[in-house]
Amino acid sequence: MPRKHTKQSAQGGAPTATGRREFLQGAAASAAALAMPRWARADSADLGAIHTEVTRRHDEALKRLQTWIHQPSIAAENRGMNEGCELMMQMLRDAGFTGVTKVPTDGQPGVFATLDAGAPRTIGLYFMYDVKQVDPSEWSSPPWDAALVDKPGMGKVIIGRGAVNQKGPEACFLAALHAIRGAGRKMPVNFVFVAEGEEEIASPHFPQIVHRPDIAAALGKCSGVFMPHATQDVDGSVVLTLGAKGVVELELVSSGERWGRGPKKDIHSSNKARLDSPAWHLVEALACLVSPDGNDPIIEGFADDARPLLPAEKEMIATAGRRLVEADTKKSLGVQHWVHNVSWQESLELWQSRPTVNIEGLVGGYTGPGGKTILPGRAVAKIDMRLVPNMKALDTLEKLRAHLAKRGFGDIEVNMSGGYDPTSTPGDSALIQAQIAVLRRAGIDPVMLPRIAGSWPGYVFTGDPLRLPAGHFGIGHGSGAHAPDEYFVIESANPKVQGMDGCVFSMVEYLHELATI
Amino acid sequence: MPRKHTKQSAQGGAPTATGRREFLQGAAASAAALAMPRWARADSADLGAIHTEVTRRHDEALKRLQTWIHQPSIAAENRGMNEGCELMMQMLRDAGFTGVTKVPTDGQPGVFATLDAGAPRTIGLYFMYDVKQVDPSEWSSPPWDAALVDKPGMGKVIIGRGAVNQKGPEACFLAALHAIRGAGRKMPVNFVFVAEGEEEIASPHFPQIVHRPDIAAALGKCSGVFMPHATQDVDGSVVLTLGAKGVVELELVSSGERWGRGPKKDIHSSNKARLDSPAWHLVEALACLVSPDGNDPIIEGFADDARPLLPAEKEMIATAGRRLVEADTKKSLGVQHWVHNVSWQESLELWQSRPTVNIEGLVGGYTGPGGKTILPGRAVAKIDMRLVPNMKALDTLEKLRAHLAKRGFGDIEVNMSGGYDPTSTPGDSALIQAQIAVLRRAGIDPVMLPRIAGSWPGYVFTGDPLRLPAGHFGIGHGSGAHAPDEYFVIESANPKVQGMDGCVFSMVEYLHELATI
Repeated sequence: MPRKHTKQSAQGGAPTATGRREFLQGAAASAAALAMPRWARADSADLGAIHTEVTRRHDEALKRLQTWIHQPSIAAENRGMNEGCELMMQMLRDAGFTGVTKVPTDGQPGVFATLDAGAPRTIGLYFMYDVKQVDPSEWSSPPWDAALVDKPGMGKVIIGRGAVNQKGPEACFLAALHAIRGAGRKMPVNFVFVAEGEEEIASPHFPQIVHRPDIAAALGKCSGVFMPHATQDVDGSVVLTLGAKGVVELELVSSGERWGRGPKKDIHSSNKARLDSPAWHLVEALACLVSPDGNDPIIEGFADDARPLLPAEKEMIATAGRRLVEADTKKSLGVQHWVHNVSWQESLELWQSRPTVNIEGLVGGYTGPGGKTILPGRAVAKIDMRLVPNMKALDTLEKLRAHLAKRGFGDIEVNMSGGYDPTSTPGDSALIQAQIAVLRRAGIDPVMLPRIAGSWPGYVFTGDPLRLPAGHFGIGHGSGAHAPDEYFVIESANPKVQGMDGCVFSMVEYLHELATI
Repeated sequence: MPRKHTKQSAQGGAPTATGRREFLQGAAASAAALAMPRWARADSADLGAIHTEVTRRHDEALKRLQTWIHQPSIAAENRGMNEGCELMMQMLRDAGFTGVTKVPTDGQPGVFATLDAGAPRTIGLYFMYDVKQVDPSEWSSPPWDAALVDKPGMGKVIIGRGAVNQKGPEACFLAALHAIRGAGRKMPVNFVFVAEGEEEIASPHFPQIVHRPDIAAALGKCSGVFMPHATQDVDGSVVLTLGAKGVVELELVSSGERWGRGPKKDIHSSNKARLDSPAWHLVEALACLVSPDGNDPIIEGFADDARPLLPAEKEMIATAGRRLVEADTKKSLGVQHWVHNVSWQESLELWQSRPTVNIEGLVGGYTGPGGKTILPGRAVAKIDMRLVPNMKALDTLEKLRAHLAKRGFGDIEVNMSGGYDPTSTPGDSALIQAQIAVLRRAGIDPVMLPRIAGSWPGYVFTGDPLRLPAGHFGIGHGSGAHAPDEYFVIESANPKVQGMDGCVFSMVEYLHELATI
């Protein structure tokens, strides 16, 4: 069957396309019963052989993922970072990469590697080897056990920190390379690989990796960069995004030491009557950042550079809003009302286009059970600001500093721990069009959105000087990133959702698609 | 030598009094060289014998204190409470108390006991068996080790949680009873003993103990109630207070669950763009409680019932201000400026008379190292409000609730964990006059203040229905209550500061003074 690469909007209602989609959905459904997808282009013997190899290597691929999850690497806690870096480097060598080298930065090291298959096209890969922090007491299965658990209605899942964010999909990509090589087939594209160990702390040193001259030169030969990802929602649907908001993560620290008022350390709270309080000082500083309902940033000049949604983006969001189900979204978030009680459509527009100032955490003075009669010498707010095009991370940080200083809070430390500019990728790039093609062959008509409201450091690729398309790909499902009981589906009980082998095969398909698109 | 009980203000410059004081200071200094005070009234053979017995039983008393410190009892963590209660009860029996019984409450149990010596006068005793929380990593000597450590310039001290607050002084009182009995002497007064295990969480159930009919009846026969205390400052001086502020300890809890807006649990922070934030909601609620500089409570009606300082109280504070050294106080607190840059005198008046709203702690969302991109479903502020006469704890709590509700924060939980009304005791009561007499004989001219700015549940004794004088007594020194490395001086290197035996003997003296005053 010949591939067709027309745009979603043009193709949506065409009888042929629909007919094919229905056929393929049926195929995918019956294949799922055999725990394998059958999306291979009918004209490709190569893909059939690779497909078999993916199945044959299921246990090996699963073991690789479990080994990876067993190794915690938490940048925020500087825990297991070197071990996690070395482990991934060995996995890269095992998968056929050459010149696998550690890239020192001012923070945790990155990794650079290449795989030259002698193919005409070269694709960039972006991996992270760090994971979010955990509170093991909140997990039903220990976060580093990588246990296989039957999840009702979902099938067999692997539970562990990093299961879906990002080791599961990344391990699927490595398994795809093993399957291609194991089947004795030629790698369809060359790879330039870059990875960091600080994604979960907002990638403070990732530019140092990507902008190293030899690495930048290698990336410059790529048609685009992608990160393995489990893009399916729990119902099998896929939202395909063309970018991401930027982010600035920082701590606001109010201390008597720096302020020169109130105590430098915690003292008995009776002294509040005669002393200033660094904790109250922080509360007042926070209150000056947003509207009195806590929702809208009022930092001077904060959104001056924010580009409003383009008409095409608004239309894309409107289409997405008609396909996505408000009640499902509210249920999955555990919420009853959108901010300002806006409509579903408006909530999506806000989510896509509104820059924010969010409190991630508050910590000051006594934080244990019950109370403790102290006047704390120090209090901290952990903040993230999310940015839309054309805001810039460092510029926004400076606006925050200036705003605080002007209002008498110049003593409050503004400690940025990481962040990056927004990122956008054209929908008609090969990187995205190949994704749409593979998704459609798998019977999935993706919901398109201008950007994820979350963030990733794609600007390092899409911004100056590389200006490459960059995105995520992989057909599979997992959830619980940054939360307890993070999981990734290994064997799916839902015919519309791919398990691990299906995700591996979607990577194989994508690489072949990228080779020929 | 006959005792004299004239008031400090009248007596201050009288040659006779001064002469005697100088003599006694000299006696105290030379006695300190022998590690024993010699304040016994020269006409009392009894006191001489008891004095010898105190010295003889030094090791026994120290061991008792160490045993007590070894047993953590932290009400805030519900840790070791029953063990601590039983241990103290056994110590009471050992010291000669009878009818030692556990008093159930809706929280941790209290203790009731009596000691009938057939004496004309009965004195109430108030003990606590709980201690503050600890973070062992902050201690130079482990908090439950009760190790003896040489503290430069101070002598041999015992380091441990509860060393001074309140096990050290309480153990000195028990040692005084052992010494009186060991010397074969008659107890000079009868005792009615009450204790609680929730002092450090603001005594939520102490009234249930004191108001039990049989206990209230027993207390009703007392001339007053006192708590053993190490009243000496590091330089040997004593501040004698005639009461305490009241306090309300509470948590303000903002949650999506209760609010019905924002998330019920922590979700990815990208959702701030379309959702309300319980953490911001808390910040805004806090900001509406105080003036924009974070200092002055603006809760409606908060201080309506606050009685301004009386002229006599102002005079007492002015006198104290001339005797206390501002620079020393600032140094010990680690501060450079008083609130609003007020003068030393004003700072003392504020400290004595200003009701406060203090943030003890902030805890919400992610509180670990670095950041975590979540929109928290819950945030908590730990608050204490300190009250002056004639404010009432429950009334103030209701004013806080009403204030929050009126401003759109009615969903925020106001969870009071404990608290009590202010307390005042007349300076001319036998309880206080006996303190002044013993202090003066020990060469100490106490600085008088209307109240400690801290709090204790004395209102249970001084308020309705008992209306008894209540205070603290004991000549000795320790510090670090509620802080790391809490200590109590065992063998003093400073002739002006009493060690443990001196503290024990000051209790003996006080009981004899109370018997005859």
